Amino acid sequence: MSLLTVGSVAFDALETPFGKTDKIIGGAATYITLSASYFTRQNNLVAVVGDDFPPSMINDLQQHGVNTEGLQIRQGEKTFFWSGKYHNDMNTRDTVEVQLNVMENFDPIIPESYQDCQYLMLGNTAPAIQRTVIERLRTRPKLIVLDTMNLWIEIAYPDLTELIKQVDVLVVNDEESRQLTREYSLVRAAAKIQTMGPRTVIIKKGEHGALLFHEDRIFFAPALPLEEVFDPTGAGDTFAGGFIGYLAKTDNISFDNMKRGIIYGSAMASFCVEKFGAERIMNLTQDDIQARVSEFVKLSAFGFEEVV
Amino acid sequence: MSLLTVGSVAFDALETPFGKTDKIIGGAATYITLSASYFTRQNNLVAVVGDDFPPSMINDLQQHGVNTEGLQIRQGEKTFFWSGKYHNDMNTRDTVEVQLNVMENFDPIIPESYQDCQYLMLGNTAPAIQRTVIERLRTRPKLIVLDTMNLWIEIAYPDLTELIKQVDVLVVNDEESRQLTREYSLVRAAAKIQTMGPRTVIIKKGEHGALLFHEDRIFFAPALPLEEVFDPTGAGDTFAGGFIGYLAKTDNISFDNMKRGIIYGSAMASFCVEKFGAERIMNLTQDDIQARVSEFVKLSAFGFEEVV
Repeated sequence: MSLLTVGSVAFDALETPFGKTDKIIGGAATYITLSASYFTRQNNLVAVVGDDFPPSMINDLQQHGVNTEGLQIRQGEKTFFWSGKYHNDMNTRDTVEVQLNVMENFDPIIPESYQDCQYLMLGNTAPAIQRTVIERLRTRPKLIVLDTMNLWIEIAYPDLTELIKQVDVLVVNDEESRQLTREYSLVRAAAKIQTMGPRTVIIKKGEHGALLFHEDRIFFAPALPLEEVFDPTGAGDTFAGGFIGYLAKTDNISFDNMKRGIIYGSAMASFCVEKFGAERIMNLTQDDIQARVSEFVKLSAFGFEEVV
Repeated sequence: MSLLTVGSVAFDALETPFGKTDKIIGGAATYITLSASYFTRQNNLVAVVGDDFPPSMINDLQQHGVNTEGLQIRQGEKTFFWSGKYHNDMNTRDTVEVQLNVMENFDPIIPESYQDCQYLMLGNTAPAIQRTVIERLRTRPKLIVLDTMNLWIEIAYPDLTELIKQVDVLVVNDEESRQLTREYSLVRAAAKIQTMGPRTVIIKKGEHGALLFHEDRIFFAPALPLEEVFDPTGAGDTFAGGFIGYLAKTDNISFDNMKRGIIYGSAMASFCVEKFGAERIMNLTQDDIQARVSEFVKLSAFGFEEVV
């Protein structure tokens, strides 16, 4: 089924203990749509860039089957830019610079051909923009997944809580879930978020895996233990893209299928961190992905049917 | 098969955000043998207490089938005492007071009836004591599991590395594995520990679960997501006791059986944190344990056989 993703398409400049990059392609919607491209060919993007954004990068997205009809190119304006520097443990980072540029007045226009989308991924951006996308869709999608971040919890809490009421799945990391609910226990945080709207809550714990709370059931997906994390940028978005891409491909939003979606998302994220930016997830094969999913099975299967 | 556990039997005084205790029974060997008691009836303890240790507490251990023939009671001396205070996040704690008392000159005497033990659990204590136990066993046990802590890495590193050469399984937490190897990645830390001796390394990550590294294979066991951690004291020892107790019961040290041992250990640890000290693991039924293990199956099974 068709997927619609809204979010940032941006330039990033990254510095990790392993090196640094010039401006490379980044942004939540970039990672989400690239990751989802391995699962669905109806992969529609709504985003905005400036006229400094290289056509070759748009071509890269198109080569991955991303429909860029909804990618606005604003003449005389510049693309959203973020630069960050990771600490030695790779778990924490400082934002060095943010230039909102075209994102400051982003009006998410939905092309007519996107109107039938069944799966909507609201990548991290201002809640007001995310809400506008929902309002502009004539038919409510079958599944709306929302990602957000600490910034919006801090500066746009009323907008965010209004928006959360309207979505099916909220994806946040552990700290964001605590910040949003003022509950330390992730079990309690998820329960509180479920009272705010979403039936399903996904809490990402980075190298510690992810928890899926669906109604009163819980599933835990490990992260793949890695020798080296080269660059964590975009891993959360890549996870979300794999998750919703898998659901859109299989058109099944049951708890059991969401579990599989989380494993696919985790597999995609484990690739993302192997190279700078989106480089690794631009160059995967279906065999690569299936082999990685097999590693997750081996990692977590303990064959215990006999005792339960 | 028979299990021999050496380690501390102690008094603890605990303070958590939920309350505080007077002196209650604690110590690594207490938690280990209590936890293992649900799996094996050949549960031999080597430890030392002072004459202030209440016979009723020794009786409690015996009621759980723990063989206390190797529990020395030193007249005119006092039992090892530890008091600690947990921070609000329950993940960090301060040691308020330590009185080594009888542990200062602990000479681990092995009763003749313990000599045939097949499973040896070296609970956390000075590496020199742990090594003496190995030396005093006429036949090498089938499996030797070693637990240690940051203190011994800091003050007894040469003793510890000599000891590590002789064991089959090292159990440490994530920070200890990093401290021991100076590797941040747990995959690399485990690989380095494997070159120091043990074929098997278990890295405990507390609320984030545990990793089992066996030769070149990895297994991950989640921790049960809990609404509330009441008191984490002894959870790591309870985990180790469940693990080695299950191996001793099944007398199978294959990788696949170790995976199941880790799940049982994780289930036992998830009970331990529900009440102060060892209270909860003194009052479990086999049905409680099987039900908890079923929760682990539900938590982590994603039925993916079709794709691999």
